[in-house]
Amino acid sequence: MVNKNSEIGIERTGATAAAGFLAAGEACRVRYEGRRDLGLLFSQEAGGAAAVVVTTNVVKAAPLLVTREAVETGNVRAVVVNSGVANAATGERGLEDACRMQTLAAAELGLEPEEVAVASTGVIGEHLPMDRVETGIKEAAASLSSDGSPFAEAILTTDTRTKEAVARVEIGGEVVTVGGVAKGSGMIHPNMATMLAFVTTDAAVEKKSLQNALNGATERTFNRITVDGDTSTNDMVLLMANGAVGNEPLTQSSLDYPAFEEAVEAVMGGLAKEIARDGEGATKLIEVVVEGAKEEVSAAALAKAVVGSSLVKAAAYGEDANWGRVLAAMGYAGVPFDPEGVEIHFGPVKVFEKGEPVAHNATEANATLAGDEVVITARLGEGKGSASAWGCDLTHEYVEINGSYRS
Amino acid sequence: MVNKNSEIGIERTGATAAAGFLAAGEACRVRYEGRRDLGLLFSQEAGGAAAVVVTTNVVKAAPLLVTREAVETGNVRAVVVNSGVANAATGERGLEDACRMQTLAAAELGLEPEEVAVASTGVIGEHLPMDRVETGIKEAAASLSSDGSPFAEAILTTDTRTKEAVARVEIGGEVVTVGGVAKGSGMIHPNMATMLAFVTTDAAVEKKSLQNALNGATERTFNRITVDGDTSTNDMVLLMANGAVGNEPLTQSSLDYPAFEEAVEAVMGGLAKEIARDGEGATKLIEVVVEGAKEEVSAAALAKAVVGSSLVKAAAYGEDANWGRVLAAMGYAGVPFDPEGVEIHFGPVKVFEKGEPVAHNATEANATLAGDEVVITARLGEGKGSASAWGCDLTHEYVEINGSYRS
Repeated sequence: MVNKNSEIGIERTGATAAAGFLAAGEACRVRYEGRRDLGLLFSQEAGGAAAVVVTTNVVKAAPLLVTREAVETGNVRAVVVNSGVANAATGERGLEDACRMQTLAAAELGLEPEEVAVASTGVIGEHLPMDRVETGIKEAAASLSSDGSPFAEAILTTDTRTKEAVARVEIGGEVVTVGGVAKGSGMIHPNMATMLAFVTTDAAVEKKSLQNALNGATERTFNRITVDGDTSTNDMVLLMANGAVGNEPLTQSSLDYPAFEEAVEAVMGGLAKEIARDGEGATKLIEVVVEGAKEEVSAAALAKAVVGSSLVKAAAYGEDANWGRVLAAMGYAGVPFDPEGVEIHFGPVKVFEKGEPVAHNATEANATLAGDEVVITARLGEGKGSASAWGCDLTHEYVEINGSYRS
Repeated sequence: MVNKNSEIGIERTGATAAAGFLAAGEACRVRYEGRRDLGLLFSQEAGGAAAVVVTTNVVKAAPLLVTREAVETGNVRAVVVNSGVANAATGERGLEDACRMQTLAAAELGLEPEEVAVASTGVIGEHLPMDRVETGIKEAAASLSSDGSPFAEAILTTDTRTKEAVARVEIGGEVVTVGGVAKGSGMIHPNMATMLAFVTTDAAVEKKSLQNALNGATERTFNRITVDGDTSTNDMVLLMANGAVGNEPLTQSSLDYPAFEEAVEAVMGGLAKEIARDGEGATKLIEVVVEGAKEEVSAAALAKAVVGSSLVKAAAYGEDANWGRVLAAMGYAGVPFDPEGVEIHFGPVKVFEKGEPVAHNATEANATLAGDEVVITARLGEGKGSASAWGCDLTHEYVEINGSYRS
């Protein structure tokens, strides 16, 4: 496993980096042989808080319904996850299966069911093999440890590598850790598409303030990545704070709350970029930066339209600095702006300004697309709003993967 | 040229099928050698009316600005079109070039400039080679004839074939013809994406009523096709009615107006389907039918989300009846509905009902995706709204074409 994001502090034990968290990942043949597909993440500390954001898709998978209720009514301190089968569009039986996963995990961990969240990812419309899932949960509970890697592996589907991130920050004189793990490869689109992320912290944070931090960070990270424009039925970001460091519980009015928010955003941002970089068939991470928009929300809409454009993605793959496609994508983002005031840069090369192409060396501009990280910047003259969005190129491999995913 | 749409009456002379229209298409090396790239379409009758719909993209190419003004202020009876260079994002000089195309064509045809519309399609951000365009316009004006084929060829870019359609209808005892020609291959998306269509009729129609017919038909045809989700800077549908049959000018209150509307919609629908079928790299036409939605507009939004989903498109290419992707795409269409009330059919095979998969023969379901026309139907239990949308599969060839379009 190559650690690509060392600059933001990825460690192999993302999910268990914060004190008091244990994890496990077992192979129980949910769908495929010979790979981990059942994960368990557990806080040894009682009395913490949890927050969750789930997909905006009208069709919500059964585990999301179970998890949302648990977070609302209980004190969630564990999550059970399977990959291979999404348990989405599975009707009444699907809901029963999700509840059963919750109950089984709770029993193994000595918890109440409402202290356990449930997540699934994989093929839609198939029922879970509950006998094997049950065995997997028992095995996972028996093998919990401070090594987060097996859990990070167990939640993957078409991902080619695990995704973990860690940030540390001082709060009230204590060093607090925020760690996270995620999966997500295809079907990734603004507003939380087939991706799961589990973020843990050993800080004590009041529940509403924890949800507030999660909402803000989700908007700036996972809601700004796209792989193929599809928003899934199973997306979930769960944030658990167990208070193991013993700090005075943080609230939105705490002096150190912004620092905590920043740490959560750093971890989720790192995970989001790893997801974009590992998009199905992707050969490169594309970052689109929009500056000078009227507001941050307009800048984000423009950046997301560009990074989501199939034509821009294919041009990045072909290493063709086709700024016309960038401008055209901005034009259909639903944000009014004056095209005459737009500047477009590929890496450091300015290619468009004042409504017209800028004389530039095309070879040099194309060369900015040759690496595995590409930055396209659009500057408007409308205001001070800026935002980044992340995605990947559209490749032959994407078509190959998605033309034969189930077979 | 294979005539694929004989059932709706495609003829090779789509643009000149209506009485009084002449056309030409010449090769003037706008961008490539050895192909027609400059077209002229002209009504011999004065005193007709014209209507136009242009792209919703914030970035509008220069020719669109010129054409919109001509249709508003003049009596447009001719259009000059080039392919190869879009004359978009070309600043002040681009606008001058578009005006010059208009003036040159008007002079050759003995018309006022405001009687001539201008359209361009091709690469964004390059200036037109006006000397060659000027020669092309002169040659085209000298070779006008009732054969619409050279014009149909001259407007193409990455299209693999011409797109023409004709419908005939009786109005006030006279047989009226509506003919049309279109181009469009990539960058096709609801709300008029890189596509040009020119529709002509020998009926007399009052200007506002002509615009009304065009708006309604555009909504139900060109706004319901998608190839890759990108909406272009250059889209235009122009409808010219020259009154050559001598009928009493139609208005919205005329008894025969609905029949005229139907003929316009039939021609534009035929062209729209041909565009979807010829999407870049496409091997099949996908039709998504949504029935039982609350309203037609909700049905259309659902159908467009499904036909635009990269995952559904890749599954169609891979001949995998992956209804989970269909359901997931419906879920992010922005239309609330009850997933429990949804039925999904691939061709005649029902695969999903009442929130759960229906037992079915997977080989049989996959076989419905094997042909060059695929129908996916979703039925909701919400109301009486129904709509169709058209698109194509996502293939290796699409990536190939768009990874190296300019080079």
